[in-house]
Amino acid sequence: MNENILGIIAGVFTSISMMPQLIKVIREKDVSNISLGMLLILITGLALWVVYGVLKTEWPIILTNALAVTLNTILLIFYFKFK
Amino acid sequence: MNENILGIIAGVFTSISMMPQLIKVIREKDVSNISLGMLLILITGLALWVVYGVLKTEWPIILTNALAVTLNTILLIFYFKFK
Repeated sequence: MNENILGIIAGVFTSISMMPQLIKVIREKDVSNISLGMLLILITGLALWVVYGVLKTEWPIILTNALAVTLNTILLIFYFKFK
Repeated sequence: MNENILGIIAGVFTSISMMPQLIKVIREKDVSNISLGMLLILITGLALWVVYGVLKTEWPIILTNALAVTLNTILLIFYFKFK
């Protein structure tokens, strides 16, 4: 299998994994079991993966981590809204 | 900066991001705001990143995603324990 296709599939999974969590938070308006530390460290790490992808010109890494940064930042906004 | 060092730093952040969440769950014994779908999709995606890393022989990707798979699997076990 082409590695880039595998990378894109892997990245889509890790990126969209926060979608069910985001939907659950928006529906239940409750974030008391969610860790703020987790969100902050995760967003920092995902942003560094984007830089890594840019330096190595690896598009699967750039695109999917940029999407993950976006989704987790939205989750962070809802965290402060519902906390 | 050496790309591999950046990759390791990025990977350590995204891997350990689940640590505060795991500690919170173990302490509070409550997972009602955590999405099972998120955990299952995330673990699948992280495992695929390990395969991607193996195919491209990129150690930062292999090591940090293997750690993340481990941490999230422990979180999944606690999810079923406390649900």
